[in-house]
Amino acid sequence: MITKIALVGFGTVGKGLYEILKEKEVRFKEKYGFTYKIVAIADRSFGNVYNPNGLNMDRMMMDASMGNRFTEDLVEWDNITLIKECNADLVCELTYTDLKDGGPAIDHCKAALSSGKHVVTSNKGPAALFYPGLKKLADAHGVKFMIEGTVVAGTPVINLASGPLAGCEVTKIRGILNGTTNFILSEMEKGKRYKEVLKLAQKLGYAEADPSGDVNGIDARGKVTILANIVMGAGMKIDDVDCKGIAEITLEDVLEASAENKRYKLIGTVERVNGKVIGKVAPEKIALDNPLASINGVTNALTFSTDLLGDITIIGPGAGKEETGFSILTDILAIHRNMCCC
Amino acid sequence: MITKIALVGFGTVGKGLYEILKEKEVRFKEKYGFTYKIVAIADRSFGNVYNPNGLNMDRMMMDASMGNRFTEDLVEWDNITLIKECNADLVCELTYTDLKDGGPAIDHCKAALSSGKHVVTSNKGPAALFYPGLKKLADAHGVKFMIEGTVVAGTPVINLASGPLAGCEVTKIRGILNGTTNFILSEMEKGKRYKEVLKLAQKLGYAEADPSGDVNGIDARGKVTILANIVMGAGMKIDDVDCKGIAEITLEDVLEASAENKRYKLIGTVERVNGKVIGKVAPEKIALDNPLASINGVTNALTFSTDLLGDITIIGPGAGKEETGFSILTDILAIHRNMCCC
Repeated sequence: MITKIALVGFGTVGKGLYEILKEKEVRFKEKYGFTYKIVAIADRSFGNVYNPNGLNMDRMMMDASMGNRFTEDLVEWDNITLIKECNADLVCELTYTDLKDGGPAIDHCKAALSSGKHVVTSNKGPAALFYPGLKKLADAHGVKFMIEGTVVAGTPVINLASGPLAGCEVTKIRGILNGTTNFILSEMEKGKRYKEVLKLAQKLGYAEADPSGDVNGIDARGKVTILANIVMGAGMKIDDVDCKGIAEITLEDVLEASAENKRYKLIGTVERVNGKVIGKVAPEKIALDNPLASINGVTNALTFSTDLLGDITIIGPGAGKEETGFSILTDILAIHRNMCCC
Repeated sequence: MITKIALVGFGTVGKGLYEILKEKEVRFKEKYGFTYKIVAIADRSFGNVYNPNGLNMDRMMMDASMGNRFTEDLVEWDNITLIKECNADLVCELTYTDLKDGGPAIDHCKAALSSGKHVVTSNKGPAALFYPGLKKLADAHGVKFMIEGTVVAGTPVINLASGPLAGCEVTKIRGILNGTTNFILSEMEKGKRYKEVLKLAQKLGYAEADPSGDVNGIDARGKVTILANIVMGAGMKIDDVDCKGIAEITLEDVLEASAENKRYKLIGTVERVNGKVIGKVAPEKIALDNPLASINGVTNALTFSTDLLGDITIIGPGAGKEETGFSILTDILAIHRNMCCC
């Protein structure tokens, strides 16, 4: 069966995803019997297009690369109508993240799920704010709500927890979930001050012009909420997560930790305490013999503490164009191979 | 559907597996709809037993714990007949590893697969020596040959590679695949000599009386062969893998590496070079900023280099009673949930 895909949002991630799908087309067909068509795209800049037999993606990519509006298959439908009316089996929600009220993404997800379409998203908004409700909606319509890309996109932590680790109980999760802050702390260990490193991070594209979402721990808090709900079934809200960022960590703090054979890391924690799941984001001094201490720069890492195995740590890249495209792909393949874990 | 299981070998791993299955019975039923019966056991010490409606496992455990032969449901069948004739859906092959010719395990696997039963095994013999043939046999009979427990049992590396990492191409695998040798090298860094540490490892149960299988790299070589064949589709034989152990590493070598900010590790490598997959086991000096350098003691770790994500490292326990039981369980659940990757 050909998987018919709609892309809502055709920015870096959407284009990156298509490039991977195209590059891997032959291999995925041979190895997993996976074939696909992109039947719809909704994008603020390029317009909304639909062709039930599959869009001419070379044309769409060319239009987009020139910054033009799409030049064929344009429809008058707004996003919600397009999502509901198109013949896609699966909708990739790839618009911008809004951690306050979920932004338009929440309505996109609802429209897709309630019209019987799987949703795959890297958008932290719906996943962090409304996971339990959206999961219920997906179940009610016999489809999947898949969110690997919302947490450490370049490292498949959610599929790891709910697939290969399914046999054990995860009792605690601790991780370095934000590359920007980890880069800043790593650089400060070299003797540089916070403000100087923040400027460098902005120059290198690791931090945004307004870095508050990263440095205040807001981004990590969203990820902690998602992990708590999806891996530990918590029903947690984002405001339930205590959150402290790294802006108050001084060079002196970092050097003092070094002298104690420790390293400051911004750690996201999810833990079951007296039967209740609690979440927290805070800078912590980590001993050097802990694998999390060895994670420098924009790399991410996560330790699952389990009943049967003790600690399992996975280390890999965070979010980037290719990484996020990969995470979407992982969920698309999991749906195709009937290997969804949640 | 109730999964009917036959256990071939009822030593530490077989009993450990049953204990986990019993402990997790309610959770697995609720979460995955998984229910099971043990219908047959074949064991050299305790005898061969069969009850198509399920054995009385409390009784079997009690007999075994007292070192007695089983006291009910004994059958005259030999292992092969039991495997072929019993009504199990799935056979767990848990006898001893023979890396020369596969030992009786190879015949157990063949009997099970050819009579339409899935095989789950932690036995490196059949997996390292005959994987391609057994996989073919499994495919021909529409069943699975699952071997998570053969490589770093406490860390689900095979299910990770073939499930959550399915979207990318693994171009290289490097890992610390043997806890015994890693423990020895870690202790030598504290200034102890090889022979002294080997004695300590034997005392702690980390090394066997005849430690050659571990220290000469033979165990790691088997795992390298398995990874090459299952993750990178190599069709490799165990003798194709260059193999050097750690017996010649002196305290001076270890201290010299320390002075260079490096650590000796016994590294198993699988790599695609000019289109050909090659395997190697050898001690290597690893720079301290490589995650593999931070792995001390009996912990194992493995780095998958991939086309889309760069390096993904997973760290966790090696083989032990509970860990190996877990690995068998992971494959049993994967079969039940129709989430097998290979």
